[in-house]
Parts: sequence; structure tokens; C-alpha cells
Amino acid sequence: MAIPTLHLGLIGAGRIGCMHAENLARRIPSARLLLVADIDKEAAAKCAERNDIPEAVGDYSVVLNHPDIRAIVICSATHTHAMIVEAAAAAGKHILCEKPLALSLAEIDRALAAVTRAGVKMQVGFNRRFDANSQRVRQAVAQGEIGQPQRLHIISRDPSPPPLEYLKTSGGIFLDMTIHDFDLARFLIGSEVVEVYSAGEALGHPDMAALGDLDTVVTLLRFANGVIGTIDNSREAVYGYDQRVEAFGSGGVISTGNQYPNNAVLSTAQGVRRDLPLHFFLERYADSYLAEMKAFVAAVLGDSPVPVTGEDGRMATALALAARRSLEANRSVGV
Amino acid sequence: MAIPTLHLGLIGAGRIGCMHAENLARRIPSARLLLVADIDKEAAAKCAERNDIPEAVGDYSVVLNHPDIRAIVICSATHTHAMIVEAAAAAGKHILCEKPLALSLAEIDRALAAVTRAGVKMQVGFNRRFDANSQRVRQAVAQGEIGQPQRLHIISRDPSPPPLEYLKTSGGIFLDMTIHDFDLARFLIGSEVVEVYSAGEALGHPDMAALGDLDTVVTLLRFANGVIGTIDNSREAVYGYDQRVEAFGSGGVISTGNQYPNNAVLSTAQGVRRDLPLHFFLERYADSYLAEMKAFVAAVLGDSPVPVTGEDGRMATALALAARRSLEANRSVGV
Amino acid sequence: MAIPTLHLGLIGAGRIGCMHAENLARRIPSARLLLVADIDKEAAAKCAERNDIPEAVGDYSVVLNHPDIRAIVICSATHTHAMIVEAAAAAGKHILCEKPLALSLAEIDRALAAVTRAGVKMQVGFNRRFDANSQRVRQAVAQGEIGQPQRLHIISRDPSPPPLEYLKTSGGIFLDMTIHDFDLARFLIGSEVVEVYSAGEALGHPDMAALGDLDTVVTLLRFANGVIGTIDNSREAVYGYDQRVEAFGSGGVISTGNQYPNNAVLSTAQGVRRDLPLHFFLERYADSYLAEMKAFVAAVLGDSPVPVTGEDGRMATALALAARRSLEANRSVGV
Amino acid sequence: MAIPTLHLGLIGAGRIGCMHAENLARRIPSARLLLVADIDKEAAAKCAERNDIPEAVGDYSVVLNHPDIRAIVICSATHTHAMIVEAAAAAGKHILCEKPLALSLAEIDRALAAVTRAGVKMQVGFNRRFDANSQRVRQAVAQGEIGQPQRLHIISRDPSPPPLEYLKTSGGIFLDMTIHDFDLARFLIGSEVVEVYSAGEALGHPDMAALGDLDTVVTLLRFANGVIGTIDNSREAVYGYDQRVEAFGSGGVISTGNQYPNNAVLSTAQGVRRDLPLHFFLERYADSYLAEMKAFVAAVLGDSPVPVTGEDGRMATALALAARRSLEANRSVGV
Repeated sequence: MAIPTLHLGLIGAGRIGCMHAENLARRIPSARLLLVADIDKEAAAKCAERNDIPEAVGDYSVVLNHPDIRAIVICSATHTHAMIVEAAAAAGKHILCEKPLALSLAEIDRALAAVTRAGVKMQVGFNRRFDANSQRVRQAVAQGEIGQPQRLHIISRDPSPPPLEYLKTSGGIFLDMTIHDFDLARFLIGSEVVEVYSAGEALGHPDMAALGDLDTVVTLLRFANGVIGTIDNSREAVYGYDQRVEAFGSGGVISTGNQYPNNAVLSTAQGVRRDLPLHFFLERYADSYLAEMKAFVAAVLGDSPVPVTGEDGRMATALALAARRSLEANRSVGV
Repeated sequence: MAIPTLHLGLIGAGRIGCMHAENLARRIPSARLLLVADIDKEAAAKCAERNDIPEAVGDYSVVLNHPDIRAIVICSATHTHAMIVEAAAAAGKHILCEKPLALSLAEIDRALAAVTRAGVKMQVGFNRRFDANSQRVRQAVAQGEIGQPQRLHIISRDPSPPPLEYLKTSGGIFLDMTIHDFDLARFLIGSEVVEVYSAGEALGHPDMAALGDLDTVVTLLRFANGVIGTIDNSREAVYGYDQRVEAFGSGGVISTGNQYPNNAVLSTAQGVRRDLPLHFFLERYADSYLAEMKAFVAAVLGDSPVPVTGEDGRMATALALAARRSLEANRSVGV
Repeated sequence: MAIPTLHLGLIGAGRIGCMHAENLARRIPSARLLLVADIDKEAAAKCAERNDIPEAVGDYSVVLNHPDIRAIVICSATHTHAMIVEAAAAAGKHILCEKPLALSLAEIDRALAAVTRAGVKMQVGFNRRFDANSQRVRQAVAQGEIGQPQRLHIISRDPSPPPLEYLKTSGGIFLDMTIHDFDLARFLIGSEVVEVYSAGEALGHPDMAALGDLDTVVTLLRFANGVIGTIDNSREAVYGYDQRVEAFGSGGVISTGNQYPNNAVLSTAQGVRRDLPLHFFLERYADSYLAEMKAFVAAVLGDSPVPVTGEDGRMATALALAARRSLEANRSVGV
Repeated sequence: MAIPTLHLGLIGAGRIGCMHAENLARRIPSARLLLVADIDKEAAAKCAERNDIPEAVGDYSVVLNHPDIRAIVICSATHTHAMIVEAAAAAGKHILCEKPLALSLAEIDRALAAVTRAGVKMQVGFNRRFDANSQRVRQAVAQGEIGQPQRLHIISRDPSPPPLEYLKTSGGIFLDMTIHDFDLARFLIGSEVVEVYSAGEALGHPDMAALGDLDTVVTLLRFANGVIGTIDNSREAVYGYDQRVEAFGSGGVISTGNQYPNNAVLSTAQGVRRDLPLHFFLERYADSYLAEMKAFVAAVLGDSPVPVTGEDGRMATALALAARRSLEANRSVGV
């Protein structure tokens, strides 16, 4: 009796695309990648070779038109996401699309309409929902372990800023970085954000400031259920990838910490030390990327709802845009 | 060769007054309390008996007029602080006054003017500056251990709200509770706050809401040096007194945790547990109250500057008032 | 240009055998399992199907005689290890053999002689050497981070005892369980043990006592370099798999802790809690089993020395036997 | 209505004597020191001045004969303890005697007989029983929080060795240092030790070796109730005073850690660091020395049993002597 297998195609063979390819190839027995496309054909070929993908192409429409492929994983450049989602939906393929769906709500709305029209499933790549710490906090909130939730604080700091070239088309820190935290905030609290206030600086990076971008932002969120959220972002935490969450309520508080390569503590005459936390997001979130993909494959194979919807993708972008408006106007902005 | 001794009088024999009395009587050999006054004469008498204070009176002017007393500790009800400061200054006494100096800047200004006129020293009772954790964070910031500071996050949650009767005259959460954190923020960062934005709720306490007060507030601070601060207050952390600080900068981050009655960790089939943090502020901050008083006594005896000035007291109140205005107007307020 | 690939055969398709099979099939691109054997042919077939192994057999000699197989992984029952090692060596295959090599030194010596005669490589399955915590402690000791080492303390407690049936042929707690810790101790300190003293009880398990086995043993080790080691074993730590190490020296101390499914800490009015540590050894040591197998594959492909030798396997058994003698005689025993 | 007050005399104005004097003078309102004696009369005078003790003498018999003194605190040199205990008992005084009572059981037995004959109370200065961590572990063991106890591990390391001069008359590491841990072990487990095995080295201190003393000892204890204990001592933990305990049983494990001057954690590009633990035993155990003295004063005033008896003092010395014999003979020794 054969195990049902999902045949997929991958569009975008960059760093994240290849990570997904490896997960699909090595760790999800019920999935099989048939084809990978990248405008850099050599990158596609390399990704295919390393992950036993039978075919590599330069033109992503080959993926969309492949008759045996039921689902597409979109990891191309951000500005192509919405366009490819539309095309993939039109081709009747289920979709896992990396975040953000697009930098404008108009594009997103068009893409979501296409998805709805086609009746395909679309999951958005907010992998942090699948992290063991996030899941534990969500459980605590949902099951009342902290009583009525009142506060949420998310610390999300990158170890170092991306290249300036990347930043130029990233849409700014809210759309590129905080967007993960907007989604995580909605997931953890289980209520919608109704108002946003942001403050930011580019203290340590005059080059970012010159682009109108920021290295440090604090975003205050008001949720429909009364919870007040804060998101604390920095582009440069020199000690490593800093990803922590605290949810507080009438019954208690739950707090998570960072992940470390080992937990050894060394005490000498100079002090008590441990090694730095994991530095790289692909390392820190390796397990959640895998869990995310497993959930997508299972949802398609089982014809059940995906755990992160297009609407979730839209809301995160809407919050990012509101945060940007709040920062520009220095006042709170309704959502 | 006799050790020089500072003779003091105490006004207010409530909970905090008696704690100061005990520190002066038992732990500061260079101090000697001669007199305690409280409108509740019996309370004054009890405090005197327990702490070997020779005399107890009902009328605080007896303290002000006592010829051997050089310094006064003011722990009376908040609304009397400014008035007594003025009178004590006029009487030529040095002053340690509990926070807040007053609920209005006009009163404070009058009191500060009296202090200046009289040329006496006045220290304001922001004891948390003297806490070992606070001192360590200040050291890290001042000595560049975290590089250029960029973010400050203060968590300050009481274990349970004060009685409604108390709240009615407290001036609200910003003037009663956050005021400690405003002072701590200025102390830790060493720069002035130029703008404030506040958000609050009274989710768990309709009785507070009815008074126009709040149980949960988040206050965002902009410092002159670019640092963005956040203060996270709650009136009710059921797990105990929650007092933590994190300062982040271009070179790293320093974070403090709560204090516990012991550090034993118990692992059973049900989970990994430790006992709750200290619950009561007099217990949690016992050492910092003592250090505060020692510093005051030393400053008077050594004729050196006090470590927390009247101006510090004024700024904390100014920030509390700005935070209240921000909350009412739902916009950021310049200071 | 083809990547060189090591073709292997697996003998023993039990829990550990299948775990190795999955690592070889999914996570080590340079390895390929051609054949799995188990006296329970159905188990072999299941393991083959789940891990894309082309062939499954009941008779392990088929594996030994397979012309394309260069290396054998031995995960059969303990009493067959030495015999199969001898046969595999005679067949000219490289060997990774699960611990213990055998329950008697005579058998081990014969097996090692066969390995030497055949000139094949043999690695013994002491996977804990490859754990990130163990590696970090070894690094600290080897690089002088703790100065001259003086003490080693290993805590190694299983979450629950194995079935009595298993215990009957296990050789007792020293040969079955402590053997891992004997090897770890030698690895961490980098010196040989010259004397052993053991004390034990079967306090909680009269059924074990009836077998002459123990649930709690403490073993004291004297190393040639003067270090004093202690190993703390229990068959039943109800809170989970407890695996910790501390090495102390003239320059400091390094200590490791357990691994947890998440690091969330929940504080409520009832206490401060976190979830239990990982319970199952295959989960706790998943990464070290993988690293062990990668090291073996690399050593065979690169014709370099294996990181854990047959001599290491012999020494661990010798120490286990000495510990048993010490316990029986209630005196220290030279090695 | 006067509070009953205990009038005491102090014999020995060294470091520990003066610490007790300060506790009695400043923190125990129901106690009053009338007299301090030290063969170094100047030391006695200084101690008296600093702690408001009315009188200082050179000859301790003045203390014993003082008619208003009901209780004596003995902090003189170790070799005088037993002799002074006998004399104090004969004089009808209650006694708090620092550890160890004596270096031989014969002396102790004579002293205990004198105490019994006189019908006075005697408490031995094992202050660590009163530490909050010790108390919490004892509570866990006594109340069954860890089920049936099976293992006890005590880590007790001094930050640096005492002067050689001191060591020469100290009786060796077991009688001088481990003696605290023998008492703590009996207290925590609540059962008697029936057998001891010790191993030791003087790896880092050839000068100690020359005296026949050791810098590193491990002592294995067998309790009457089946618990196996281990005590891990070092004379030199360069990172500070290392005092930890772990008790393991059928229901779980309880573990304590060190005490730190603050709990700030600093993360920079170089690592994650915190300040060193408290270095000095008088700082680390300040609270337990106070609690010990309060308990003694309360026992005398309330005519209730003292919490640490002469028999406890005798047992700790007996265990130290047994450990020394075990080390010399390299075999376990019954107690």
C-alpha cells in the first residue's frame, strides 16, 4: 500500500529556496520535488543536484505548467511573489509563498482573489509560528495558563543588517523584518490588532538613515481584546540572533529565551560565561521551517485548511504599512 | 576619637517610615534618630519603642524645631511632602523626602526654590537606583559595555494593587508607580527624556477603571541621545514582584532578573519548578533602601552632593504628568 | 564529478539500527545503505521500506558477503557483537559496532585481534562523545580553559528502567549503562583510569535486586593524571533523561545542563515552571548519533583514523568489569 | 511590658567572633552582649567599641564568671573549644560553640559529658543548616517532594586556601572544611552515615602535600536509609565560593546554585557573561549566621531544644576522622 506523495515544484533557488528543497528532499517522505526554477539557471541546477531534484530550469512558467506538480513553493524575489501567486493559482496549483506576499495591499488583494477564484490552498511562510517556543507560548495563552492576556512583548533582533543593496528594495524594516513579528503577535494573542504606534531610529547606521530606513524600531500594538503589545526590533544584535517572547496576563507570565549551540557554562576568575546564541536564522529556525513545510504538505494531501492563510499574510503587511505611517506621522494609526 | 554622627528626625511612622527608622537605628552606626512624629501618635510611639528612638510626637513641627536635629526624613502622606519640605528647608534641615515630591509641578517648584534658598541638601527617595542590579546596568551603560545605548526596557509590576482608598489620592498609576521607572530610566541611560507616548488599560480591575485609573500601562520614551525606552507596568503580577531591566546597544545587551527567596530548582514528573520571586517591595528592595539612606547620611556628614536630587524628583513627576497627558490625548507628548 | 559514496550494510533492525538507517538514508549524502539484515525478517523489511534500502534479509552473512558493501553497522543483540565483528573483519569490511563490544574482555580481545589482522577500521558506538555539550567540555579541558583538571562529575540517569527481560542479559548496570559514562570520562579528561571504587543500591526496584542488579550506582574514578572522577547513575529519573557533566580544575569549572523541548518559563501564583527535559535518549542524542555516523563515513572514505577505537571499547568494558568487582568486594580496584 | 533579653558573653574576637557580635548587637533585639574576651586584648577592645559591648577583657574566665551572663558564644581557636565548653558548662552557662568542637572524640566526649552534667544547652555552629537553600532542600526531602531519597551530592569549594600556618593546626581538610558538609549531609537526609570512603589529592598545592594535607577530596557516604552521598571539596575554586547541593530520589531531584552579587547577564560579541559568585564565606552565609544566632537566642529564652546539638558536633567530627582513616587505608570505613 503506497503512501500518498505530494509532487511539488520550487520557484527560487536562493538561500531559503534551497533550505526548503533540502527539507522536502531529505526529511518529508511524503513529498517529492520534481522541478526547480531560478532565473539564475546555474543556481537552479546546483540546488537540483544537491537535493536529488530531477529537473532544473530558468523559466518558472515551466513549473506552473508541469502536469504532475500539484503544489508550488515560491521563494523568488519579493516583488515577484504576488504575480507568481496569481499565475500559480490560475494554473490550479496549491501554493506555499514566502513572506511578504507583496509590499502593497492592492497587489496582495489581487493575488488573494486569484487564489480564492481558483479554489487552491495558499500558505504564507511565517515559519516562526511553528517554533517550539512560539507554540508553547500560544498554548499557554490559548489554554488560559496565564489567565486573561494583557501584555505581549516580542524581542526580534537580527545579528547584523542585510546588504544595502537588499535594503533598497526591501520595503523598509517594517515590511522586511517586523512583518514576522506582526504575524507572530496575532498568532500568539489570537486577536486582531486595531491600532499601531511606532518609533524608530537609525542610530548606528547612517547609510540606512540615508535610505530612509531604520535600525531600531519599537512598535506598540493595541489588540481588539485589550492586550497591549510591543515589538522590539534591531538590525544589529552583535551577540547573535535575539528572538524572545513574553506574554503576561491576569494569571501569570510566560517567557522564552534564545537558542544556544550548547548549554555549557564556564566559570573562571574572569567571570561566568557561556557561548553566544545561534547567530543565523536558518540555524535558529531550522526546526520551524521543517514543521512549516510538513504542515503544508499534510494540508494539501489531507485536503485540510493550511495553518497560515493568505489573509494572515495580508494582515501582517497591513500592520507593517500602518506602522510605517505611524512612524512618519508620529501618531497612533488605526488599522 | 569619636565617629561623627548625624542626628535625624523622622516624619511619618507608616510602613516605609518604620523601615527607614530600623535601618537608621540598626544598620547605620553614623546615624542617630532623635525623634519621630506621626499624626497617629500611637504609631509614632510604637515605631520609637521598636527602634530605640528617644521621643515620639504627634506634631511634626516639633521635629522641625528640634535644635539637635540636622536632617529630616519625610515619609508622611504624599500630599504633605512639598509643604513639609518647604518648612524643613526654612528650618535649615537637610532632607530625605519619599517620592513623589508632589502631584503638581507648581508645588514642586515652590519646594525646590525653598530648598535652594535655604542652601540645604535634599535627596528624593528613588531607592531603586541603589539596587545591585540597577547599579550593574548603569555601570554597563556608563562604561560602554553595551556600546552606544539604543534601547531600554523596564518591567515593573506590583504583585497586587493597593487598596482603592489609597488609589483615590495617589494621582494615578503614572504618578504613583511608573514614577519610580521614569527615574530609573533617566538614571540608567544618563540622558533626558524628550518625548513620551503612553497606552493603558484597566482590563482586570473595573473598580480602578471607575476611578479613571489603569492596571496596565506601557510608556514609550524618547531620550535626547536617541535611545528609545519602554516601561511595562502592571498593578497585578500574581507570581510576585516583577522588577527587570534590559539595556541594549551597539555592543550588546544587559538584562536583569527577579530576586528569589532561594534558588533551588525542583524537577519532578510534573515539571521543573522553583519557588516564586520575592513578593513584597520592602523585602525585594531591602538592600537598596539601606544603601539609599547610607548615601544620604554620608552626603550630609561629608558635605558632598546627594546622589538623587530635587531636580531628579521634579523630572520624574514631569514625565508622569506628560505620560498622563499622552494617554488622555492618545498622541506623543514633548517634555 | 561524482561525490565518493560509501556503501554500507546494516545488521540489526531494532530501534537503534533503524535510527542509524534513517541517518544514513536521509542525512548523509555520501552514504548509501544497500542491505539490512535482522533475524526478524519482517523488521528488516520494514526498516528497508522506510529508508529506501534496496534489500532486506534474515541472515547477516549475506551482508558480510555482499561484494559492493565496504562497511558494516552492527546493531544486533549485545551477545552477538564480538562474533559478528570477527566475521566482518575477516570479510574485509570496515565496522561501526554498537556498544558494548562484549561482556567479557576475552571476547573483545579476540575481536580486536581479528580487526587488527584484517587491517580494517572499527569504530565503537559511543555517540555521546559527539554531543555538543560533551564537545564543549572536552574543548575546555583540552585547551586549558579550566586550567589543570582536578575533578570530573558525570550525572547520567535514565528516565525509566528497561524491561526485566532485557536486564537479565544486559550484564548489569555497569556494562549496560555506566559503560557510556566510562567512555565519556576517558574522552573528557584525556587520561586513563587507574583505579575504580563503586557503591550501589537497588532501593526502588526489588525486582532488580532479585536479579543482582542495581538502580543506583556511584562510581569513583582515579585517573593517571590525578583527576578524581565520579559517575552518578540512576535507572529512574522520573523527570526525564538527566545527562549532565561538570569538569573542575585549577582555572575554573565548566558545567552542562539538560536539553528541553522548549525554553519557556511560566510563572503563576503556584510557582515558576518549565516543561520537563527531553525524556527519550534517541531524542536527546539525535544530533550526536548523526555526528557519530558522519564521522565514521568520513573516516572510511578519507582513510583517516576513526574517532572512537576498538581499544576505547575495550577500556570501557574493562572499567565496567572493575566497577562490578569493586562493588562486590567493597574496595577500590586497580585497572 | 519589657521584652525578655538574653545577656551573653563572647569569647574570641576574631573574624567570626566579631561577625557574631555585630549580629547580636544590631540585628537581634532580644540579645545583649555584655562582655567580650580575647587573648589579644586590643582585638577584644576594638570589637567591643564597634558593637557597643560595655566591656572587653583578655581573660576568658572573666566571661565565665560574670553573674549577669547566661550564655556564652565560643569563637576562640579550635584547640581551646572543648576546654572552654567544659568550663562554661561548669559555670552553668548556655553555650554556642563554633565548629569543630575538637579534633578528637575523647575531648568531645568529655565536653559533652560536662554539658549534660550541668544541664545547660549547647548549640554547635553549623550555620549552613540555616541557609535558605539548605532549608529548601531539607524541606523537599522531609516532605517527600523528591520521593524516597536515594542520592545526595554536595559541592563545597573554597575560593582560596587558608594560610599554611593555619593549615598546620587545622586537623586537615576533613576536620577543617568537610566537617561542614558532613553535618549538612546528615541534616539534609535525616539519617545517619554508616560508612565512608574518601579519595584525595593535593594536585595544585605541593606545600599542602608537604603537610600531609589535600586540596581536593571526594567523600562517599552510605546512609542507614540507603542513600548514597558524595561530597566534593576543593580548597581553591578560582571563580568564587562554590556551594551547591543536589538531592535525588524516586520522585525527583532538587538542586541549588550559587549566590551572586547581582543577576545581570551581559551578552556581547565575545560571549554571554555574568559577574562571579560571592567570594567570601561571611558574605555568602551572612543570613545563615544571623539565623543561627537567632535560633540559639530563642532556644535559650524559650527554654526549647537547640537546633544543632553537641551530638551533631560529635558526629561530624567522627565522620571527618573516619574519612581520614579511609583515605589513609584506601578502603571504606564503617562509622
